[in-house]
Amino acid sequence: MKDKMSKLKKKPNILIILIDDMGYGDIGVYGGGVAIGAPTPNMDKLAHEGLQLTSTYAQPTCTPSRAAIMTGRIPARSGLTRPTLTGENPKVNPWASENTTAKILSQNGYKSAISGKWHLGESKGSLPNEVGYDEWLGFGSVQSEYAQLVNEWIYPDLINKPERLNAVKKMVNQNILTGKKGEENKVVQPISTIEELSKVDQVFADYSEDFIKRSVKENKPFYLIHSFSKVHNDNYVSEGYKGKSPAAIPYKDAIVEVDDIVGRLMKLLQDLKIDENTLVFLTSDNGPNEDVWPDGGYTPFRGGKGTTWEGGVRVPGIAYWKGMIAPGRISDGLFDICDMFNTSLSAAGVVDKIPASNYIDGVDQLSFFLSDKGVSNRNAVFMYSETKFMAIRWQEYKVHMNVFNTSATRRNLDQSTIQSIGMSPWVYNIYADPKEQLSQGHRYFEWGIPGVMGLIAAHLATYQKYPMKDIGLKKPGAE
Amino acid sequence: MKDKMSKLKKKPNILIILIDDMGYGDIGVYGGGVAIGAPTPNMDKLAHEGLQLTSTYAQPTCTPSRAAIMTGRIPARSGLTRPTLTGENPKVNPWASENTTAKILSQNGYKSAISGKWHLGESKGSLPNEVGYDEWLGFGSVQSEYAQLVNEWIYPDLINKPERLNAVKKMVNQNILTGKKGEENKVVQPISTIEELSKVDQVFADYSEDFIKRSVKENKPFYLIHSFSKVHNDNYVSEGYKGKSPAAIPYKDAIVEVDDIVGRLMKLLQDLKIDENTLVFLTSDNGPNEDVWPDGGYTPFRGGKGTTWEGGVRVPGIAYWKGMIAPGRISDGLFDICDMFNTSLSAAGVVDKIPASNYIDGVDQLSFFLSDKGVSNRNAVFMYSETKFMAIRWQEYKVHMNVFNTSATRRNLDQSTIQSIGMSPWVYNIYADPKEQLSQGHRYFEWGIPGVMGLIAAHLATYQKYPMKDIGLKKPGAE
Repeated sequence: MKDKMSKLKKKPNILIILIDDMGYGDIGVYGGGVAIGAPTPNMDKLAHEGLQLTSTYAQPTCTPSRAAIMTGRIPARSGLTRPTLTGENPKVNPWASENTTAKILSQNGYKSAISGKWHLGESKGSLPNEVGYDEWLGFGSVQSEYAQLVNEWIYPDLINKPERLNAVKKMVNQNILTGKKGEENKVVQPISTIEELSKVDQVFADYSEDFIKRSVKENKPFYLIHSFSKVHNDNYVSEGYKGKSPAAIPYKDAIVEVDDIVGRLMKLLQDLKIDENTLVFLTSDNGPNEDVWPDGGYTPFRGGKGTTWEGGVRVPGIAYWKGMIAPGRISDGLFDICDMFNTSLSAAGVVDKIPASNYIDGVDQLSFFLSDKGVSNRNAVFMYSETKFMAIRWQEYKVHMNVFNTSATRRNLDQSTIQSIGMSPWVYNIYADPKEQLSQGHRYFEWGIPGVMGLIAAHLATYQKYPMKDIGLKKPGAE
Repeated sequence: MKDKMSKLKKKPNILIILIDDMGYGDIGVYGGGVAIGAPTPNMDKLAHEGLQLTSTYAQPTCTPSRAAIMTGRIPARSGLTRPTLTGENPKVNPWASENTTAKILSQNGYKSAISGKWHLGESKGSLPNEVGYDEWLGFGSVQSEYAQLVNEWIYPDLINKPERLNAVKKMVNQNILTGKKGEENKVVQPISTIEELSKVDQVFADYSEDFIKRSVKENKPFYLIHSFSKVHNDNYVSEGYKGKSPAAIPYKDAIVEVDDIVGRLMKLLQDLKIDENTLVFLTSDNGPNEDVWPDGGYTPFRGGKGTTWEGGVRVPGIAYWKGMIAPGRISDGLFDICDMFNTSLSAAGVVDKIPASNYIDGVDQLSFFLSDKGVSNRNAVFMYSETKFMAIRWQEYKVHMNVFNTSATRRNLDQSTIQSIGMSPWVYNIYADPKEQLSQGHRYFEWGIPGVMGLIAAHLATYQKYPMKDIGLKKPGAE
């Protein structure tokens, strides 16, 4: 690996492609694609020519996942433990005490940006250009928040009651914004109609392309998070994509649009001859949202977004770096998306610049990526529902201390359904039982329980020295 | 396609690789492999270099699936609607009025054989060399029937009661047999210990290799079904395979052994320089058996073996033919394993030799395989539980007239659990809802119901002219 890194003539670019709410199973190489009516040739190609990870874990919802990628920390530490709701602002700005990858890289010769969805706070001091990004173009919230204001067939009880509609509109900034570090954000264009909403991912793609070209022109390495608005509900595809997927439903058409944009970005790297100098990582922020079916994704696993069953947290993870990551690798090595903090800094050669002020949960996975037979540097993945510790993945075992109830058909997001069914802990050998159907811990995993309990205890003990951060978001059930 | 076929200098060989009880999700390219602790590099390679079918359908259990492949007929027509039980013999020999692919090909210049598991009747006139195969080597029943007699840790209540054990042993022919057409079958070796049982798939592989070599030597095209004993429970791997899979459990080790044997067979075709003259088709006979966990396979879908949910009937299907089938194709076109009857005869150029005496449900899919952008020639797949019509797959829709109850965790094989839940028919858009979670027929598929009902009516009407065949097997619940 050191040999490979020493061959590089300049600092590598880092491109993180983050797709919203896409399921583990949506991409062809993960069992979806053609089989489920939405081929994904560009993402399949990325996997075939790179490293396909089969055990990448995100947080159960979008805000904490994004926070984890950017801070390298479990969300309980940054305080960004759940999506903020319409009009809600935390009492404490979590970003005041966080260091983002973008900030550290920007201080070390990189040009950093995020394109697309933010959803990590819209109050003062919380937007991308205020937390370390040199620039950005995107929106502050999430696709569904804009979508609910534009479609009377789906939200008649909101849209057809003017007093409700006006109250909600006051809380939502229905615009694509852009801004540079140290400057005020400006409105790029409104997103207040279906037509405007349908185009956002093309606008974000144009911006990403422009940012990459400008970075190359300025001869500066870049760090870019391309953060899709799709395929979070509600999906409205841009021109030419309606009915383009064999399934001909908006979610699937949106997958095709996303895949095309991934292809565009990869082609640009080739055209600019920087594909051998760019680490690309593609992932999703959580499992598919089962509540919004059929406008949600596919996971072969149990549960969905919001839960710590595999369906909620196991996501695609594809690492691509031409000439650096051997093509055709598939690995079940553990990867937590917060590892992208350390791994990005490591690729940039500035791991030593991580401030010591904060506890970092991320692990440097660069050797896992670059060594032809690389193995994960991560021992276990710890899973949370907001600040509640739920489960651990260790080797091929998943041990739940708390579980969400899932009905035979759909899962229930309500936190109150975390419950005790049978004897805890619930243990699944997810090689033998990938769908977490039959807890077998008390017979077949007696040998492993003490070791796993030790890992959990050591993990939870870190909060003694580094306590959880409370940013004053309301808790479910609290006043 | 005609161009391609006319280039062939001789009749092509046909190799059907049939894996017992393997799940749709077990192979890497179908979402399993490395991700579930049992890499399948050889089967992945076959798919990457051939045509990967994502909508291949088998029957819900093994005997009817095998009958369908060999006769081109829905099992209700041949009478082979369910596995025969230990010691059970049908009153009527179903084979007396059936034509197998092997028989037709053998009459037309081919050398035909089956290697491995039979499980299509052991009484007089029912073994392979009596129903059209020129020769065979294998066993008459199924792995579990031999396995139950050898492991006191799994079957203590059978093995530790001598009166039971002896009674069962009398009904089971615990031997690998071999025979040629017109000759008596001979015992090759016993399978009465774990050690003997563990080696059977190696014995079958040796025989298949020998048969292929002899065919080439005799300069005769061959038709061979390589019918694995694995990965049906109980899995005992042969020497060198114990703990070889990352999961280190017998089922996963068995997958690795099966995959290695697939690799051996493919290598032999290359070594003999006949890979450009051999159509290979790899599949499974039904979904994974959930009752025998953890000695069963993985499907991402609902239900398992014995049901007509996707988990029971959707199986891998890989067609490979070097230089004839374009590599890297993936298609969701419908394929019923009974289509291998017509497709094999078509590849051999003897479709016109199918006797008119029997109604054939199979469809010639050779153009689907050989045309670079080929589409399926099949309009719909009809699914049965024995003689009871259950469901239809049409385009991306699955319409159930009857469903099996599935619990949140496991499914129940008991026929009595076919039941009415909610309003029938149950309709799933399996692109949007691959796991058949939420029946949406009465709202979103009103437009399609009349057409589908017409297809079902036309299908069922065929029984008026060609009635179902009753071979006198006992019916569940009957005396």
